[in-house]
Amino acid sequence: MTSNTSVRAGEDLLNASLQKVEALLTATYTDHPLESHVNAMCMHVISAGGKRMRPRLVLLSALALPNFNADNDLDNICHIAAAIELLHTATLVHDDVIDKAPLRRGQPTLNDTDGNHAAVLAGDYLFTRCFDLLQKPRNFDIITELSRTLRQLVVGELYQLEHEGDVNLSLDTYYETIYHKTGVLFELAAASPAITLEQYYDFIAPLKEFGRKLGIAFQIKDDMLDYTADSSTLGKDAGTDLNDQRITLPVLMALRHLEQSDPQGKEQLLQAIKEAQLEPVLQAIAATNALEECEKQAQQACDEAIASLAVLPPSEFKEALISLCHKALQRQN
Amino acid sequence: MTSNTSVRAGEDLLNASLQKVEALLTATYTDHPLESHVNAMCMHVISAGGKRMRPRLVLLSALALPNFNADNDLDNICHIAAAIELLHTATLVHDDVIDKAPLRRGQPTLNDTDGNHAAVLAGDYLFTRCFDLLQKPRNFDIITELSRTLRQLVVGELYQLEHEGDVNLSLDTYYETIYHKTGVLFELAAASPAITLEQYYDFIAPLKEFGRKLGIAFQIKDDMLDYTADSSTLGKDAGTDLNDQRITLPVLMALRHLEQSDPQGKEQLLQAIKEAQLEPVLQAIAATNALEECEKQAQQACDEAIASLAVLPPSEFKEALISLCHKALQRQN
Repeated sequence: MTSNTSVRAGEDLLNASLQKVEALLTATYTDHPLESHVNAMCMHVISAGGKRMRPRLVLLSALALPNFNADNDLDNICHIAAAIELLHTATLVHDDVIDKAPLRRGQPTLNDTDGNHAAVLAGDYLFTRCFDLLQKPRNFDIITELSRTLRQLVVGELYQLEHEGDVNLSLDTYYETIYHKTGVLFELAAASPAITLEQYYDFIAPLKEFGRKLGIAFQIKDDMLDYTADSSTLGKDAGTDLNDQRITLPVLMALRHLEQSDPQGKEQLLQAIKEAQLEPVLQAIAATNALEECEKQAQQACDEAIASLAVLPPSEFKEALISLCHKALQRQN
Repeated sequence: MTSNTSVRAGEDLLNASLQKVEALLTATYTDHPLESHVNAMCMHVISAGGKRMRPRLVLLSALALPNFNADNDLDNICHIAAAIELLHTATLVHDDVIDKAPLRRGQPTLNDTDGNHAAVLAGDYLFTRCFDLLQKPRNFDIITELSRTLRQLVVGELYQLEHEGDVNLSLDTYYETIYHKTGVLFELAAASPAITLEQYYDFIAPLKEFGRKLGIAFQIKDDMLDYTADSSTLGKDAGTDLNDQRITLPVLMALRHLEQSDPQGKEQLLQAIKEAQLEPVLQAIAATNALEECEKQAQQACDEAIASLAVLPPSEFKEALISLCHKALQRQN
């Protein structure tokens, strides 16, 4: 039985660690005047926040390991958590260049305020900060894995670009794309403590599975919110996926349903997608109960994520990982 | 005394190593179909060639070290040489996005053929390949130094962007910019073997100095060629710096000369720069002997580079490093 006192101590430890990660993310790197501009641009993006899902996942996955030695290892884990968040931020900055996005997390994007060139360079700068933080644990495996993850993120983004407007996208391809786009970084985040601390070798595979499934659930929810949330809650324009001709699960489910029930309706939906007409697409999604089907698939990924935590002993941190899964589905932005 | 036989053996060793680097640069990385597209884009850029100055510098700097153990260490050094060339290539791909350049090394740029988005991602992909190759020597110092170098390259590019069209650029700022833009990577290339092999710690500083000065000489020559070479030799459009409003040494020297001798001529030159009129700018450069002044400054950097090689024992590889300096100034593209 976990006492209230130890729960509070655990919460304190998590919060202190999250603060440490925040300090690492926003640390001024240098006094060199040449770097002040790019530093300021990066701070602008980092400080705009975001949910810090990935650092939280790193920290909880460490704290939930049996006999995790916080005194020895938590500092290294905080560095990894910050590095993973910076990798995420760098790819967001580059994605915004690629997607020509004007808003991110409710703030104008760097490409909008400083131009594409500055945004490309700011992203590159964030990669270097990421790799610097990653030196701290003096562990080659985590560097190799992070590099591999970045490669997969790039491939995912390219794959998405290649499939723009592809209404014949198979479900398998959709899942492969969101795995590469989101799953791989959640996978790395969840497994990174076990990768870095060799005594936890056996935990790497199940924690990767946990991160992968959570990432997929998270991305399905993201794709749903793009059709359901309003722009002020979402921090970016809703309907962006349709505008950018990214074919995601809500639309795929609606098309799939209409194929059986209403071939003419399917043709109309295809036309509306092609013209990026939000209203008729929303109507088709509603009429076919496509979001309920999405919800089911997200819930299944979430259940599988939780099942893979069976390898961890009971603890408040394991509970927190489970609750992270539930929150991923319940969130409104 | 070095015999002809040993010179030939040395050349063979260098050529075999350069071939190994080439094989590492063009190795197919994966069979995953998702990666084939980005891989093909990167191969297109890598195969377009370039002078492979940086890998050559890495290899020669290793081979010129006293009692360098080729059997033990050359494979690691080849991996570093390939990693540094990929870092260079990645930054070129991103620079081409930034500069909206249509040609590089006589070939259409990726942003021209595949769009900005694909070029941003291909650059990111090359970073990951670079970091993967860098894992081979299992040495943290070289990873840290490479990350620092990338940061400086980014800062240099941003600094250049900030100073676009700045005809009041001081010579100090010009030199600081070309150091960040080119010097830092030559510095890393030259010092990387000594950084990686701990018994050569004392060689790090002089070899950094060598690379830095060679890089500066190389970049001055580049800036001269932009005003003197024709497009077919150069592999990109001549006059690009003027078009992009990058103020480089030939123009700075001409302005400096006219300031003393012909204030009205200076005003005319300023106007021609602003309007990116190549003909009158070329005339002003010729009339003020600006290129001779540039040549002098490049020669001085070159002499300083060679002087810093005093730390190395005599060898054919040391001679090859010296001849690299001379070739950097004599080249026509």
